Amino acid sequence: MCVLVGTEDKEVITLAHGSGGKQTARLIDEFFVPAFHKELHDGALLNISGQNIVFTTDSYVVQPLFFPGGDIGTLAVNGTINDLAMCGAKPLYLSCGFIIEEGFLKSDLQRIVQSMQQAAETCGVSIVTGDTKVVERTGANNIFINTSGIGILMSEKAIHPARIESGDCIVLSGDIGRHGMAIMAAREGFSVDLKSDCAPLFDPVQVLIQAEIDVHCLRDPTRGGLATTLVELAEQAKLSFHIEEEKIEVSSPVKSVCEVLGFDPLYVANEGRFVAFVPESQAAKTLKSLSEFYEKPAIIGHVHNRSGDRVIINNALGTSRYLHRLVGDQLPRIC
Amino acid sequence: MCVLVGTEDKEVITLAHGSGGKQTARLIDEFFVPAFHKELHDGALLNISGQNIVFTTDSYVVQPLFFPGGDIGTLAVNGTINDLAMCGAKPLYLSCGFIIEEGFLKSDLQRIVQSMQQAAETCGVSIVTGDTKVVERTGANNIFINTSGIGILMSEKAIHPARIESGDCIVLSGDIGRHGMAIMAAREGFSVDLKSDCAPLFDPVQVLIQAEIDVHCLRDPTRGGLATTLVELAEQAKLSFHIEEEKIEVSSPVKSVCEVLGFDPLYVANEGRFVAFVPESQAAKTLKSLSEFYEKPAIIGHVHNRSGDRVIINNALGTSRYLHRLVGDQLPRIC
Repeated sequence: MCVLVGTEDKEVITLAHGSGGKQTARLIDEFFVPAFHKELHDGALLNISGQNIVFTTDSYVVQPLFFPGGDIGTLAVNGTINDLAMCGAKPLYLSCGFIIEEGFLKSDLQRIVQSMQQAAETCGVSIVTGDTKVVERTGANNIFINTSGIGILMSEKAIHPARIESGDCIVLSGDIGRHGMAIMAAREGFSVDLKSDCAPLFDPVQVLIQAEIDVHCLRDPTRGGLATTLVELAEQAKLSFHIEEEKIEVSSPVKSVCEVLGFDPLYVANEGRFVAFVPESQAAKTLKSLSEFYEKPAIIGHVHNRSGDRVIINNALGTSRYLHRLVGDQLPRIC
Repeated sequence: MCVLVGTEDKEVITLAHGSGGKQTARLIDEFFVPAFHKELHDGALLNISGQNIVFTTDSYVVQPLFFPGGDIGTLAVNGTINDLAMCGAKPLYLSCGFIIEEGFLKSDLQRIVQSMQQAAETCGVSIVTGDTKVVERTGANNIFINTSGIGILMSEKAIHPARIESGDCIVLSGDIGRHGMAIMAAREGFSVDLKSDCAPLFDPVQVLIQAEIDVHCLRDPTRGGLATTLVELAEQAKLSFHIEEEKIEVSSPVKSVCEVLGFDPLYVANEGRFVAFVPESQAAKTLKSLSEFYEKPAIIGHVHNRSGDRVIINNALGTSRYLHRLVGDQLPRIC
């Protein structure tokens, strides 16, 4: 007799596969890499008749649809613009695909499309093509939005994990955890002064490029948070990152909500922050440029070619530990 | 006292808003045109540093996911490729965004991504960027796929409804109704020899362009069927179309399923057929070129500058009637 233990979990998709952490990476390795014969990057660099175009896509399934600091429409525009910006591309055009549940309030749809248009206008981006599908009612007042984006590469050199070098400074643009915790506070009905950090990132990136800073890599720590982002980049760069925990700014309301709900801010999603890998000689210039946009940009660590492709975080007490990708599902449907 | 009658229907999204017919057009006019300050076309023509790029997006929510002649993966690749082809663009790159319900079978996901890769390979198109989200279980074994596509314009002159002229021949590439009726037969469990016509359309379009046929307009009659497509084009061209019903080929199995379920084949979705508007002098050449790909391409009608922007269909008995857009919802979730 053969007893199968836990087969169900192995054979079906779970919420953890959408968390942006370890299971998401496994899903990609197991299904998408073999089928598509390659890893699908957040932003694909395409050469179309001599033009360097960046192409990206993202679906947004956040709940609640409206939250302090934005809504699913703001997020759908800024999120995709940010994927382009993180490749060093100026966002030009967006598509939008709506999947709407039967029974969805037209007034909510109107708020959402207005948010999308405002967010696009703020960034000088045009929404040029769209599609709408309606699916049967499940009871939730639900809408899913896909936006795909086209941008044109601004930086002369590639901005890519492969360009991260030993000695690079790791700069974080601001405090972390606002988006994920604002969503969770809204879900739980907490009365706390906390807004999502949801914001477009192209302007600060453009300032870095215009200041002739040789930016090696950029990444916005969304699903899986800062910790998962750093682990992914260390693995891709095949280098180790040494991080100083006390340099990472976490606001009081984020700390409070994290404590109440048992979350680690390092694993909480952000929608308006990024890490930049720059040569140490240009770190001061980077901080100065970013201070035009952010209150507290900080050098949170350095890249080394020792200790393998690991992320080591040192705390204020002088002890250190390895960071890992998010395992399981900390925050479902936050983007 | 004020009594509101039927407000609920007016204030919420219904399945009819996703049918591709009259209510879809109204939804676009009511929400997307005012917010985005323009109509969002199926394919947007973009000039990026002198390159004529076409950009399009579509979400796929078909049920059942697997049907005779294809699956949601085949459809998601071919459907978006076809939107590009209908603009006269050679499809180059696709993005794919998956929204997967928790509990979805991994084996089904594997079949779907393999179908996508095969369909892309057949057309020489690369899937270059992707995203996966997982949403809470509703009980259905559900997956939604968005694909966005980038193509490069092949035709020297625009292929667009504005170029339709009085005197143009209206050529239909093959028989109609296969996709919608294959889906409905699969849902109802009918035992009938009927496959979806789901297929990529770029090769026949390329042959028309290479044969130097001055194609004025192309359109694939998907949601809403041939009738809705013709009405939309007549309105956009501000011309009238006179159609001969007996020239429109409908296969026996499609006729049978339509009769049993009470559908009109003119309103049933296709995923591998198109109408071409060409000058009468080039109609014979168009039919000859299309006969490389299709059994029965046919001239189904002509364009006139009388009778307003209406579609008039004459039947074999010599009587004629106006065609209208699909009203209500004939076929939910067929693409």
